Amino acid sequence: MKYKTIKAISLTVLFTVLSGNAFAQDYAPLLLLSKAEAKNISQHLGDYKALEKSFSKVKKGADKALEKPIEVPIPVDNGGGYSHEKHKKNYREMYYAGLAFQVTGDKKYAKFVEDMLLEYAKIYPGLPLHPKRKAEQNSGKLFWQGLNDCVWLVHGIQAYDLVKENISAQNRETIERDVFKSMAAFLSESESGKDTFNKIHNHGTWAVAAVGMTGYVLNDKDMVERALYGSAKDKKTGFIKQIDLLFSPDGYYSEGPYYQRYALQPFMVFAEAINRNQPELKIFDYRNQILRKATNTVLQLTDANGYFFPINDALKEKNFMTEELVFATNIVYENYNETAILPVIQQQGEISISGAGLKSAEAIQNMKKQEFVKNPMIIADGPEGKSGGLALFRMHTKKKDEQLTAVFKFASQGMGHGHFDRLGILLYNNDKEILQDYGAARFLNVESKSGGRYLEENKTWAQASVAHNTVIVDERSHYDGDWKEAEKQAPHTIFSDISNPAIQIASAVESNAYAGVEMQRTVALIEAETPFMLDILSLKSKESHQYDLNFMYSGQIMETDFKYEPAVTALSPLGKANGYQHLWKLAEAKANPSLSKFTWLNDSRFYTISTLTDDTNKIVMTRLGANDPNFNLRNESGYMVRASDKKNYTFVSIIEPHGSFDPKLESVQDPHSKVEAIQILKQDDNYTAVLVTFKNKKSYTLLFANKETTPATKHKMTINGKNTEWKGSYTLITN
Amino acid sequence: MKYKTIKAISLTVLFTVLSGNAFAQDYAPLLLLSKAEAKNISQHLGDYKALEKSFSKVKKGADKALEKPIEVPIPVDNGGGYSHEKHKKNYREMYYAGLAFQVTGDKKYAKFVEDMLLEYAKIYPGLPLHPKRKAEQNSGKLFWQGLNDCVWLVHGIQAYDLVKENISAQNRETIERDVFKSMAAFLSESESGKDTFNKIHNHGTWAVAAVGMTGYVLNDKDMVERALYGSAKDKKTGFIKQIDLLFSPDGYYSEGPYYQRYALQPFMVFAEAINRNQPELKIFDYRNQILRKATNTVLQLTDANGYFFPINDALKEKNFMTEELVFATNIVYENYNETAILPVIQQQGEISISGAGLKSAEAIQNMKKQEFVKNPMIIADGPEGKSGGLALFRMHTKKKDEQLTAVFKFASQGMGHGHFDRLGILLYNNDKEILQDYGAARFLNVESKSGGRYLEENKTWAQASVAHNTVIVDERSHYDGDWKEAEKQAPHTIFSDISNPAIQIASAVESNAYAGVEMQRTVALIEAETPFMLDILSLKSKESHQYDLNFMYSGQIMETDFKYEPAVTALSPLGKANGYQHLWKLAEAKANPSLSKFTWLNDSRFYTISTLTDDTNKIVMTRLGANDPNFNLRNESGYMVRASDKKNYTFVSIIEPHGSFDPKLESVQDPHSKVEAIQILKQDDNYTAVLVTFKNKKSYTLLFANKETTPATKHKMTINGKNTEWKGSYTLITN
Repeated sequence: MKYKTIKAISLTVLFTVLSGNAFAQDYAPLLLLSKAEAKNISQHLGDYKALEKSFSKVKKGADKALEKPIEVPIPVDNGGGYSHEKHKKNYREMYYAGLAFQVTGDKKYAKFVEDMLLEYAKIYPGLPLHPKRKAEQNSGKLFWQGLNDCVWLVHGIQAYDLVKENISAQNRETIERDVFKSMAAFLSESESGKDTFNKIHNHGTWAVAAVGMTGYVLNDKDMVERALYGSAKDKKTGFIKQIDLLFSPDGYYSEGPYYQRYALQPFMVFAEAINRNQPELKIFDYRNQILRKATNTVLQLTDANGYFFPINDALKEKNFMTEELVFATNIVYENYNETAILPVIQQQGEISISGAGLKSAEAIQNMKKQEFVKNPMIIADGPEGKSGGLALFRMHTKKKDEQLTAVFKFASQGMGHGHFDRLGILLYNNDKEILQDYGAARFLNVESKSGGRYLEENKTWAQASVAHNTVIVDERSHYDGDWKEAEKQAPHTIFSDISNPAIQIASAVESNAYAGVEMQRTVALIEAETPFMLDILSLKSKESHQYDLNFMYSGQIMETDFKYEPAVTALSPLGKANGYQHLWKLAEAKANPSLSKFTWLNDSRFYTISTLTDDTNKIVMTRLGANDPNFNLRNESGYMVRASDKKNYTFVSIIEPHGSFDPKLESVQDPHSKVEAIQILKQDDNYTAVLVTFKNKKSYTLLFANKETTPATKHKMTINGKNTEWKGSYTLITN
Repeated sequence: MKYKTIKAISLTVLFTVLSGNAFAQDYAPLLLLSKAEAKNISQHLGDYKALEKSFSKVKKGADKALEKPIEVPIPVDNGGGYSHEKHKKNYREMYYAGLAFQVTGDKKYAKFVEDMLLEYAKIYPGLPLHPKRKAEQNSGKLFWQGLNDCVWLVHGIQAYDLVKENISAQNRETIERDVFKSMAAFLSESESGKDTFNKIHNHGTWAVAAVGMTGYVLNDKDMVERALYGSAKDKKTGFIKQIDLLFSPDGYYSEGPYYQRYALQPFMVFAEAINRNQPELKIFDYRNQILRKATNTVLQLTDANGYFFPINDALKEKNFMTEELVFATNIVYENYNETAILPVIQQQGEISISGAGLKSAEAIQNMKKQEFVKNPMIIADGPEGKSGGLALFRMHTKKKDEQLTAVFKFASQGMGHGHFDRLGILLYNNDKEILQDYGAARFLNVESKSGGRYLEENKTWAQASVAHNTVIVDERSHYDGDWKEAEKQAPHTIFSDISNPAIQIASAVESNAYAGVEMQRTVALIEAETPFMLDILSLKSKESHQYDLNFMYSGQIMETDFKYEPAVTALSPLGKANGYQHLWKLAEAKANPSLSKFTWLNDSRFYTISTLTDDTNKIVMTRLGANDPNFNLRNESGYMVRASDKKNYTFVSIIEPHGSFDPKLESVQDPHSKVEAIQILKQDDNYTAVLVTFKNKKSYTLLFANKETTPATKHKMTINGKNTEWKGSYTLITN
């Protein structure tokens, strides 16, 4: 070790003498990795597996980069195209090389960053707005959208911070002037950039993080203050205001977990930089440690494999192993000593090369393999926690390692990336989507698919109400598909409870999705031989409407207990607009007089939706893919129960997993639903009472108040002459 | 250990005295587990992990069985129904209890088997043919098909063998008379059974194994001899003849790997019993150790996760972890000391509780984790190896741990379970199906799906030629879908070579699938920056026909380089019959004048089929699901290049994986095909010459003889005035 250090010093001396340049040794990295931490990392590489793995990846990336000539192309391409991918590669390579320099001390890495930044300095000031910019999105210069330029800067400024000590005063001046100041000015002060910089939105967070960190490294107080408090420094926008408004008190981010994951990187990385440069701001304690909650909450919003629930615009390929969350978990562990998060870091298997990463690598080194505990949660939405929320119900079944998760979403819109999925539900069996959300219609960075941007079908299908497991009135999306209108209103939580081992339940009302129609959904996951979901969706209106209760199930149809007319030799779309035009109508049926059942197989489990029906109900089976000339859509499956010409109407459904198919033993158990009957015992303005009976004669009666009451309120219902009294919003009677 | 043995003996004595029965101690198990091996197992339970795991499963199964009252229901149900599943459960429980008795010595297990067999003795002789029997299948008594009765007997007789020592002479007599002799007579001598017993077919193998093993245990020479040499003992049928005829010299089983897996259990288990009772037959050396080859070959006919290529009627859920192959691998290791197979046993993680299992558990105990090596193979089909065959081409790409496997099937029909897929191909990337085979249309044992039997769609779709990656003439299946006609003819191998690192290649001709049409396909996997498949399919006819080259790809369409007319608001089936009625026509196109490309995404890889076309070719994009009133079909995707009104015609295609999509890094590389041009340089009766050029200007010229020649034959072609000479059937020139 010592020998190496001496060798490095003598080489430096030699180089200084030869080049004759005055190297300024007066700078030490300020952002995420101090000199002491870098030294510590270099000394512990062999000691901590995760550290070794992560640094070896960084060093390999840097070494590979150094083998090739530096190329900084004039930006011309769309997402996925050459110049787009090249500029992304460049910032990553600079970042890796910066880290490699600090840890190994080898100046070739610093030189690489310097040389590349000098190349950027040559072209950047003269660049126009990107030629492939879109009218509806703020343009970048290096990339088609400004967002990517911000991401470039977040990485570029860190790389510069790591190597600045090795750059001559003259080159520093060039780089700072023509790259960093120029870019920060473009992203925060230009007509195109300023608007985003002051937005309460993840694009805004990337912008302020980029500019704020640049401010620290360039010792530019003005930049830092604008990043923290907004362009006008009036605290109406900027990082602090974003923290105030973008997270609910429970750490939910209004755009949903997919964007929460993405936004957490600038949130956490900038917070770490703030804490290291302005510890007096106590940023990690701000708003009752909201950054800690935000990280914990997003980690809970995942399936058994850590994939984020694809609420709103979301790609299903993202899980908590992504780099953004490696930064976040490491920083949370470092700053809060949050040991509950260590199993996630263990699963990530990698750490960030930073002070936080070092501490994390040390913590997991001798830890036994642990599962990250997934809990039932009620997560309030809205800056004040008053804009509805999400319920996560979780129960284990008797099958080994099988956990069901029901997601009930009564959250706010989530801005432009929000979907019109008010009161929507999802059901997972471990990592398997049973009732699914389409997520976003997008092939990220695949050029041939609309340049890798959101596809047209994202609006026409993925965001539409009928793409979700919810109710659609008169074949129109909630809020008629206008997110700005939808943004003004949120559902209202009536009650929720996850403290009862027999039942996890929540009830919420949405009154504004359709003029004159009030929708209330009450969803419960109930403990039984196999846990089941009870789903009560009530609609109230003075006018008659068509109500479609839609389920996007995943799997193969096994049986129905009603007769249907299949469309065998011709298919036509179910409707004309609002997503209906994308659904092929595969079959339709008149529902059974009392109960209609629909069973499918997913992996090795059967699932049945049993819905209380009468013979005025229609049933439609659908498949996605109509009006899709570019084959942009996945061909997923839908099941819809329709009630036409109704004013007030209540759908009651049971969604139950049952039985199993064991292909190894070739044995099949319980392929048929176990539900015998569903009954609405009573329903009025104040109360709803539903009875579910199973074939084994077990029955479950759920009584609940339709309006908000306190936990101490006493309630009384008389059903068939029998009185029941209870305290709190609901009671479940099992027999 | 000693103490336990003494205790067991004293209990036996006690019991003998109390019950007053004469227990015969004059029997020791004869089939797969000797008394010495059982003792050895009980002593080594703690020493070998796989042994402990496997026996603990067996014992748990037995213990659970003993908790419940014995129930032997009158057979009434279809596959998947109650009585069906119960009788399956019963034989498994008896088998487990028999093993548990031999290993632990605890007589409660033996008593359980005895009691259950006595219950069977009560009902079996009086049972009629099964009420749910099908006209086209031989009926069982316990099950709807006789096959399941045979499987019952294979397990039942082993269970009896294991506990016979503990059964009184009187009960032995009852059991042997009313269960085993009665069942053996039904399965081998009754009108219903005799036919199957003498079939050269996997049902026949289960029958002879069941009856032969029963013969050993009942000391009934006649049964054994009939099992070995057929009912007439003339060696025209029976086990030995089955070994002669059902496997090719390379160990390929004509029904395909799915049924090979299934048949291997009775083959190997019965062979083991033969070897222990009539070692003089040297059954494991028979036909150049064919049973060893059969096991090795079926293990090679799998994807990267050990799943069998779903050739012919095959369910895709089966891999080499199934119990049948646990028996086979253990027995092969025991009898041939086949160490190459140990990585498979290691992956199986379990062993059979038998002498073979004990040796296997010992062998893998201290073995390092090893990968089972998958090799390129040319596998001849037919008892003499002259009925065509299969080519397995395997190449690694530059991506870590990525292996491409191309399967080219020019094998014989495979009897009633065979598909009309002459000259069909499949492509896998590790375990991912890129060009896929539908396999069988069946939900095994799912009652609501035609009683768990093969679905009607198995004939109307899954077996049809258009369900495969091959050519279809005039929209009719090969041999007009008549398997008995197809059984009479096999394709003919022209040449094959897997010895060349630059190219793996095979060429075969099918002359009888369509009257007057000769089909020759030459398939090669060629080493390149990324290996690619070159596919040359030539048709010769004196009459004009429509030729459809079909590809059932798996993934999402990314781009085409031709314009197509999508069917956006109405779908109709592609045709009327022969599988075409099940395909919705999604789009059609006029092909490009020289080359038509079709690109899709599967997992994180792009794939392109580039086909030499002119503007008389049509292209059709399809999706499975038309005329499917019961939703029995999976909605898979097809791409078809059509040549109409042609006599002689040659399709030349390149199928190339390219690029990648990394959702973690959000980066996309090489989403476009790299093929620039395809040319037929020359083609006549004797030779074909094809040139493929890539965008990086690399070119590959393949010259080959269209007719069989010897490896020493010298060939000469003149192309554009230039002479090329080579030796052997083909040459590849790269530039």
